[in-house]
Amino acid sequence: MVLKKAGKKKGAARKRTRAAHIEGFQLRPIGVIRSTIKTRSEAPKQGSEGAPDAWFEVNPSMAPCMDGLAVGNDIIVVTWLHQGKRDVLKVHPRSDPQRRLTGVFATRSPDRPNPLGLHRVTVRAIEKNRLQIGPLEAIDGTPVVDIKPVLCGIQESA
Amino acid sequence: MVLKKAGKKKGAARKRTRAAHIEGFQLRPIGVIRSTIKTRSEAPKQGSEGAPDAWFEVNPSMAPCMDGLAVGNDIIVVTWLHQGKRDVLKVHPRSDPQRRLTGVFATRSPDRPNPLGLHRVTVRAIEKNRLQIGPLEAIDGTPVVDIKPVLCGIQESA
Repeated sequence: MVLKKAGKKKGAARKRTRAAHIEGFQLRPIGVIRSTIKTRSEAPKQGSEGAPDAWFEVNPSMAPCMDGLAVGNDIIVVTWLHQGKRDVLKVHPRSDPQRRLTGVFATRSPDRPNPLGLHRVTVRAIEKNRLQIGPLEAIDGTPVVDIKPVLCGIQESA
Repeated sequence: MVLKKAGKKKGAARKRTRAAHIEGFQLRPIGVIRSTIKTRSEAPKQGSEGAPDAWFEVNPSMAPCMDGLAVGNDIIVVTWLHQGKRDVLKVHPRSDPQRRLTGVFATRSPDRPNPLGLHRVTVRAIEKNRLQIGPLEAIDGTPVVDIKPVLCGIQESA
């Protein structure tokens, strides 16, 4: 009811507030994955299931954020699974139609409302503005949105 | 140079493309954390450092995504650390000025270009459209953007 009564000025203010709110949840890619895996159908479900090493090309503006990472470090790469379908709420786990439909939050499906991927990888090599990392199941061209160190024996994938 | 030469029509097309690109990286909150921790200064650095249990209130439209989660499950909660400063590229680890400035991707600082938090928690209770989870160091009002099951002995926090 309040919304219907609001005049033009309040409407405009609402639009600005909404724009600021949206900007608040806006991810900025920090780089991109370069991999020999080119399509979802080629990709293993998890990095530990035979995935290759890959390169993470860092946006030059983000290079200072990498300071302190070293070869041999275990890190969590957070990706934006850009081919994920965001309107999927339930899936058959591991694409197996024999398994019952399950909410995506109880699975690692790349199809989910916010298609974020978590990948535990090891840093293999560091070059200017790029890291070799693996094993990684993300496909070529996947945007990266965050990197975090693994803490005390932590493990994470997909 | 190409950008300067582009006419109005191409400019409009570019704006649409840019809008679509931005929408592609737009997170939609799936719910919110309700916690007794109200400010960053009260919050421990990690859940394992004395954090309390908290409630995750799920947006009703996302309820089907929860199907399959059960009490006792270990899950990764991905949060949007809404008070994080996005222009910070380096920090002193654990806010200790004695430690040298380090790139945020080599730390778990909530101040980072995309302020995503990863929290490994256990599901303590499930009620209609909310989960009790813990231990969790995220502050009251923190938006949640994804939930993933922990795979085979995986551990993750912050």
